[in-house]
Amino acid sequence: MSRPASTSPRRRPGGRTARTRRLVLDAVLAELGEHGYDGLTVEAVAARAGVHRTTVHRRWRDVGGLLTDVYDAASGDDWQPPDTGSLEGDLVALNQEVHDALTAQPSVVGALIAASFRSERAAEAQRRLWEGRYDRSEAVVERAVQRGELARPVDARNLLLSATAPLYHQLVLLGGAGDPGLPARAARTAVLAAAAGAFEVPPAGGARPARADG
Amino acid sequence: MSRPASTSPRRRPGGRTARTRRLVLDAVLAELGEHGYDGLTVEAVAARAGVHRTTVHRRWRDVGGLLTDVYDAASGDDWQPPDTGSLEGDLVALNQEVHDALTAQPSVVGALIAASFRSERAAEAQRRLWEGRYDRSEAVVERAVQRGELARPVDARNLLLSATAPLYHQLVLLGGAGDPGLPARAARTAVLAAAAGAFEVPPAGGARPARADG
Repeated sequence: MSRPASTSPRRRPGGRTARTRRLVLDAVLAELGEHGYDGLTVEAVAARAGVHRTTVHRRWRDVGGLLTDVYDAASGDDWQPPDTGSLEGDLVALNQEVHDALTAQPSVVGALIAASFRSERAAEAQRRLWEGRYDRSEAVVERAVQRGELARPVDARNLLLSATAPLYHQLVLLGGAGDPGLPARAARTAVLAAAAGAFEVPPAGGARPARADG
Repeated sequence: MSRPASTSPRRRPGGRTARTRRLVLDAVLAELGEHGYDGLTVEAVAARAGVHRTTVHRRWRDVGGLLTDVYDAASGDDWQPPDTGSLEGDLVALNQEVHDALTAQPSVVGALIAASFRSERAAEAQRRLWEGRYDRSEAVVERAVQRGELARPVDARNLLLSATAPLYHQLVLLGGAGDPGLPARAARTAVLAAAAGAFEVPPAGGARPARADG
């Protein structure tokens, strides 16, 4: 869900510009994973990508520009949320993606998150990426409603935030090691809460629920 | 819950050493809130605290030492989780503390979290602080069990992480503005999930639940 691993602009698979971008952004991720934000320089990225330094400077200007484009490239990819046939299955798979991204070594996503505390432009681009990911993930909740798994309208975004938040909290802020049971546990918690009405939205019109259905 | 605002070592209310420590650590928090990690220097802290620079250097050595002691002082305070008489009330109050700390201006806690991505020593001290806070907060769950609010044994830590994680995720990583409804919403979600069995632990001995009680 948060993994910007594929930076390939797939809609333009060919072309020298697209190829250069892919080489450069892959180099940013590799440098960041190995050396962190403090070791990230336009020079090192250019050398690793095999692209002339002035090309990188001209097109991305600085480290902030490179980081922003890593997020923007990921935002423009064709990622879609898992579709396993059940709400819980989809949330487990989604959480597994987050878990794998946050525990990968070298931790590119961890380094990107750390970088977002250094560069306001990177922070904004990261928020746009996550916003897009959560937006697409609402399909998971819509499908569950269509299948009749969720009886009443729910706030899809709140459900998704609730399901995924423990992963980010435990693996990023609390600095925990990977926890193989966490993706399923957090998904199941959200599903049980949803079944108990935690994410229900009041009916349109702002009136309180009439409770005619129990 | 995460607020290390009071750095006073209350067990030693007097004494010149304790007074100096309080002055210096308060100056660290003020400098951090105003200028962030990059603006934090031993010199600025000493000047703000009105303490000689060599005293600060001798006792705390560097910025990493100052940050570590901010966390250690907070870890040693007399913070206790709220006791409102109900599980949901306690969790709402706990989440409100987290919400207020994360949305305060200047954001000292936000600056401390950002600093933890710069200094591994600060990150470790922050983990110790949070570990201690969650540890003390387990009393909230124990009281709920004693009151009969939770029928079966639950994993207190998982319940607390689930209740608080959305606050950290939305306010720190997703960079959201304060959300007045969030503390109560996240607390209620955790309570509903708990009632539905999300945090149950298997009985001692490792056997599966016999389900004699339903």
